[in-house]
Amino acid sequence: MALGKDYQRQDCSLARALEVVGERWTLLVLRDCLFGVTRFSELRGRLDIPRAVLADRLAALVGAGLLERRPYRPGRDEYLPTEKALALWPAIYALREWGERFYSPPAGRRRFYRHVPCEADLDSLGRCPACGTAPSPAELETRPGPGADPTLRDDPVSQALYQPHRMLTPVSA
Amino acid sequence: MALGKDYQRQDCSLARALEVVGERWTLLVLRDCLFGVTRFSELRGRLDIPRAVLADRLAALVGAGLLERRPYRPGRDEYLPTEKALALWPAIYALREWGERFYSPPAGRRRFYRHVPCEADLDSLGRCPACGTAPSPAELETRPGPGADPTLRDDPVSQALYQPHRMLTPVSA
Repeated sequence: MALGKDYQRQDCSLARALEVVGERWTLLVLRDCLFGVTRFSELRGRLDIPRAVLADRLAALVGAGLLERRPYRPGRDEYLPTEKALALWPAIYALREWGERFYSPPAGRRRFYRHVPCEADLDSLGRCPACGTAPSPAELETRPGPGADPTLRDDPVSQALYQPHRMLTPVSA
Repeated sequence: MALGKDYQRQDCSLARALEVVGERWTLLVLRDCLFGVTRFSELRGRLDIPRAVLADRLAALVGAGLLERRPYRPGRDEYLPTEKALALWPAIYALREWGERFYSPPAGRRRFYRHVPCEADLDSLGRCPACGTAPSPAELETRPGPGADPTLRDDPVSQALYQPHRMLTPVSA
């Protein structure tokens, strides 16, 4: 059944948020852009979606002001997260923590996020246990946990993300 | 284009979470159940979706262990949020806060959430500024903000939610 994209008669800020980021794949695209995966070709390697769907999601995110499109070479674009995208981090983190809690493999968490200045891993609410703040992605390093499965993807970007990686910095492929 | 429901080759807890709650309408159904809107007929009055879609979303949430189905009268069911659904509150709150920040009408916020024991409104990260905890919905009262638009819906449940309402308690229609 085809359903629309908006929730016009819902007087609700959750509905407004989902109108912008609720479509299939959109939050995973944003996740990758916050990791530092910003080039179309890299995103294609990470996400098993048709080019047209990825292009549509990127265009929608640029249109909504969450990504800024910038050529890094003639004819090649990258998509940089804006403040508006960074402001979505607490929601992305909270969703993924719920996934960690209820859908981690027996081996444990899939991923950790460390507050670099304090050298402490974020708690389940996205706060640094050392300084008490809820850090922005710019101050975080991510690394795989014992529940990660490096055999699942063999693209170079995904492989690079199985090493510790400072968020918002380019993932060297 | 028809896209699947899962993200099989994404080694990521955000993907796992979205497989369970990422479908259109699902988070709005959960929002209402956490408000205390738990009966099929009430949900129907609040959400502009076909019966079959609502029934599908409710069945999926029961199957995933987020709602418990219970007859309140012969032939009539209500859907009560489980601990697993309550654990999703930080994610729902964070998404709606992002919506409040970027998509509120000029008049202001659409909704407030108050930590009842402390009589203090939650901050943007879902914490009570008085006691510093991140309260569960059971301890929260919600009320409309200046940006709410009571003319948008005339169903009795929505009208009731334009008054202060303790979450997880039945919305008297």
